[in-house]
Amino acid sequence: MKAFFAREQLLHDQSVEFNRGELTAPYESGKRAEMLFSALEAAFPGAARDAAEFPVSHLLDIHDADYIGFLQSAFGEWIAEGRTGDAFPMVWPVHDMRGEKIPNTIVGKISHYSFEISTAITKHSWISARRSAETALSGAQELSRGANMAFSLCRPPGHHAGRGYFGGYCYLNNAGIAAQYLRNEGALRIAILDVDYHHGNGTQQIFYDRDDVFYVSVHADPDTDFPYFLGYADETGAGKGEGFNLNIPLSRGAAWPSYGEALSHALNRIGDYAPDALIVSLGVDTSAGDPLSGFLLTRDDFARMGAAIAALQRQTLFVFEGGYAINDVGGNVVSVLNGFLGAAHSTP
Amino acid sequence: MKAFFAREQLLHDQSVEFNRGELTAPYESGKRAEMLFSALEAAFPGAARDAAEFPVSHLLDIHDADYIGFLQSAFGEWIAEGRTGDAFPMVWPVHDMRGEKIPNTIVGKISHYSFEISTAITKHSWISARRSAETALSGAQELSRGANMAFSLCRPPGHHAGRGYFGGYCYLNNAGIAAQYLRNEGALRIAILDVDYHHGNGTQQIFYDRDDVFYVSVHADPDTDFPYFLGYADETGAGKGEGFNLNIPLSRGAAWPSYGEALSHALNRIGDYAPDALIVSLGVDTSAGDPLSGFLLTRDDFARMGAAIAALQRQTLFVFEGGYAINDVGGNVVSVLNGFLGAAHSTP
Ligand SMILES: [Zn+2]
Ligand SMILES: [Zn+2]
Repeated sequence: MKAFFAREQLLHDQSVEFNRGELTAPYESGKRAEMLFSALEAAFPGAARDAAEFPVSHLLDIHDADYIGFLQSAFGEWIAEGRTGDAFPMVWPVHDMRGEKIPNTIVGKISHYSFEISTAITKHSWISARRSAETALSGAQELSRGANMAFSLCRPPGHHAGRGYFGGYCYLNNAGIAAQYLRNEGALRIAILDVDYHHGNGTQQIFYDRDDVFYVSVHADPDTDFPYFLGYADETGAGKGEGFNLNIPLSRGAAWPSYGEALSHALNRIGDYAPDALIVSLGVDTSAGDPLSGFLLTRDDFARMGAAIAALQRQTLFVFEGGYAINDVGGNVVSVLNGFLGAAHSTP
Repeated sequence: MKAFFAREQLLHDQSVEFNRGELTAPYESGKRAEMLFSALEAAFPGAARDAAEFPVSHLLDIHDADYIGFLQSAFGEWIAEGRTGDAFPMVWPVHDMRGEKIPNTIVGKISHYSFEISTAITKHSWISARRSAETALSGAQELSRGANMAFSLCRPPGHHAGRGYFGGYCYLNNAGIAAQYLRNEGALRIAILDVDYHHGNGTQQIFYDRDDVFYVSVHADPDTDFPYFLGYADETGAGKGEGFNLNIPLSRGAAWPSYGEALSHALNRIGDYAPDALIVSLGVDTSAGDPLSGFLLTRDDFARMGAAIAALQRQTLFVFEGGYAINDVGGNVVSVLNGFLGAAHSTP
């Protein structure tokens, strides 16, 4: 197994988070990626690889050009306007307001490209997000070169980032960018299995009208959890993509019995689709004790998850997403990977 | 002149404001209303009147029933869920997310009914907002009884509140509720002149498809200023309301020469409409030195504004909106009213 990483991903460093009325230290920190990297080095000596560099065209395959331009210039515009600290949005064009308007000044512009308040643009967001996408691309490249599996330690995460918006700690949709890379390299059908606690609204949006990328997510019911306004079971795709989006929302408090059943259903549907490759948006904020979440998975459950995914017998790229109990993240990810590798090795 | 007020309007007390990345004391405070009330008592002895009570049906004439229910129950639901402090939104359903969804839990629900982050629901928001609407209704009632003019010291303000959403310090659209009251009492045509620094996105939304209420606003260009996603010059009304919405955005830095010209154009258009009554959404955050704004009106300019409005010779209700330079608000409002009364008295 190769585990890809890029140290520039640690540069992004948001100072505060305004979350549900509370000002806290951000839950999404470089520390969690560093600790995960150490756990991977300990568990899989010699697996670590530096992420390669890739042309920006791979980002533009998935994201709008104006949005990519915005990510590069936003923090500089914020400072140029005399503002300080991280660049936060303020207003969102809901309720008949004009979603198509991109105001000329930075507060309005950031607001246009955002969907929630906990995530800011910091001085190094762009470089860290780009290297995070390149970390996913490095894993996809590894698969395109014939590897059976790879792990991409992406940070910041990606699945909440849409075609033209950031939020939920995400700026670039790493899993989506990796999926498109594999399509460009000749794979006909890609499945994305999203096991993060939260629905991957960005990934769903990006592929909602496509039948060549099947998005399947098991997550907390948006009626009770972020992102609240996407991830319901009746969202099944549109146009050519009808039937190629599967949301399996679970109630808060879900533990392995119900989670495992949902995962099994998800994997059966992916098996029927017979993808050339599988990308797993691997958030481990489903862990009991995660500060942002309400599922109750244990270390052993994560191994079961890995084994169940391996049973699909597909080329598999794991792309890291959420997970905020920083002392548990490394162990939980290692458990998924060991479960996968053990089951893969024991396959006849 | 009668000046209506209700002391319950002072109860609403937001603890902090998260505004463009900064945590501050809220700009919109009870103090500004108290100081304005004192200035009015000093300038117009005997003018003050307690606002009457009115049935909730007047609010339901303008706002969605589910929104009114939400305003009443939201803070209780927030506390019942174990949260503390004021109730803030978090996520907004932009970019293909589901605007029609009303999540079952309070963070999602508040988010659904909100459009920006600086405004929370506090313990007393509902009672203060309701009394603020009743303060506007009391002024409208005064006109319906034949008065030539009245002033309603409304707080919290109203013009950013839409049919089904709060924000911009506003919960109920006081000017809109007053306009509908006058319509119900037999007035055929109402004009609302909004001279607050900010565009009254809520008032525009409420009356956008109606020809019986002409909304005219002179305000800071939304390209540079809140609310960013409404208030552009090309928004002229829809359907039957086409031609009955007039936005006159001005650049930051506007002083009386350009402001007076815009106001004159607005008043000419209102004159052509020949309304039975005029409601003025009177924000004085156009004042030089207002901490949230970028126009440069002086005390004398406010008197000119009042005189220009009086020249229309219509029954006129002034409804207080924004104004955050708390030491100047009282003097500026008194100046508008004196300008109006002086000109009204000198009319042949
Ligand atoms: Zn998550
Ligand atoms: Zn204002």
